[in-house]
Amino acid sequence: MPERTSISKRVIERLSEYRSTLDEFDTTETRSIYSHDLAKLCGVTAAQVRRDLMTIGFSGSSAKGYDVSELQQTVGDFLGFGEERRMALVGIGHLGRALLDFFADRNPKLILCAAFDINEMRINRVIHGVRCYAVSQLTEVAKEKRANMGIITVPDAAAQDVATALVEGGVSGLLNFAPVQLRVPNHVFVENLNISTVLEKVAYFAGQSGDKER
Amino acid sequence: MPERTSISKRVIERLSEYRSTLDEFDTTETRSIYSHDLAKLCGVTAAQVRRDLMTIGFSGSSAKGYDVSELQQTVGDFLGFGEERRMALVGIGHLGRALLDFFADRNPKLILCAAFDINEMRINRVIHGVRCYAVSQLTEVAKEKRANMGIITVPDAAAQDVATALVEGGVSGLLNFAPVQLRVPNHVFVENLNISTVLEKVAYFAGQSGDKER
Repeated sequence: MPERTSISKRVIERLSEYRSTLDEFDTTETRSIYSHDLAKLCGVTAAQVRRDLMTIGFSGSSAKGYDVSELQQTVGDFLGFGEERRMALVGIGHLGRALLDFFADRNPKLILCAAFDINEMRINRVIHGVRCYAVSQLTEVAKEKRANMGIITVPDAAAQDVATALVEGGVSGLLNFAPVQLRVPNHVFVENLNISTVLEKVAYFAGQSGDKER
Repeated sequence: MPERTSISKRVIERLSEYRSTLDEFDTTETRSIYSHDLAKLCGVTAAQVRRDLMTIGFSGSSAKGYDVSELQQTVGDFLGFGEERRMALVGIGHLGRALLDFFADRNPKLILCAAFDINEMRINRVIHGVRCYAVSQLTEVAKEKRANMGIITVPDAAAQDVATALVEGGVSGLLNFAPVQLRVPNHVFVENLNISTVLEKVAYFAGQSGDKER
């Protein structure tokens, strides 16, 4: 298996996509799957699937395809799903609540261990099973709860301070929804998810294809 | 200027990022900007900025950098911000509401023209200035409101039917938050935003860097 560091973000995204697609199969019914079938379900090419799986040292037989349960196991192990991740969510507006909803029943290895807000009405409440603390306690509680990931859904102006406090609390991965470029130490991984940028991309390509069709 | 179709999704994302970063400048104070400064603000390399801007036929002077207001204009025009986009939002749970909040004050060219839900309590109400209709009226209202983009935040099992109804209503671009691969005609652009996949990527890279540091 290759060094984890040599794998690109794109490959990890696709592997995660393959894994969640494979998890929908009942392995007593579907024992194997061809690369082109997995590719179709995930919206990529068969060559891409084969290349990605080769990257993590997994190969199928051209006659029978990939063994589904072996593949589930290998991809899951590779993505580190044996290891538990403990996440802190900062900002419990609508987006924060959508994420709390979302975690109520998904990946059991991604645990939301604490939520934070500045609104007195939310502090010290338990929302979807997650206790909410004051943002002023961020570093302290993140340490105490051994959080290693943070999700930032606060207003733009507060995002940098929140990121700094999370990193001080021991967090080494951030998912940032604020359209702000965060300054963090080199060992911290940041993924920016700017909804506006995503929509502008859809607008661009929708315009194109729509224009062509009409 | 090159054919719009030849531009990749990644380039469009970055151009959108440059544009929103540039929009924060007061052009009477900051008349020009160097590629390395813009790059730093956007978290990319200076070479990348220069390459992307070259792609859309924009070049700066190595002595003075790029003219900020010219660059704002050119990138905006290229992304089609002269053209208005009319969006339909389907599903007004927490995520849908977060998006409604979000649109209250952002890009004036991306207009949320209608929202849809199956919950009787929400239908016929106006939420953040947007009227909410029954999902059963989707195709009809999308046509009437001339929607050309759709945002899908419904449960997984409902996503395909919603996509089909939107496309029948004239929509040619979809932002899909449901972790489902949608089947749509070729002229429709789909962007899937699977929060779970994004988090698993952060978990993967957070694990790595954290492990190395400790």
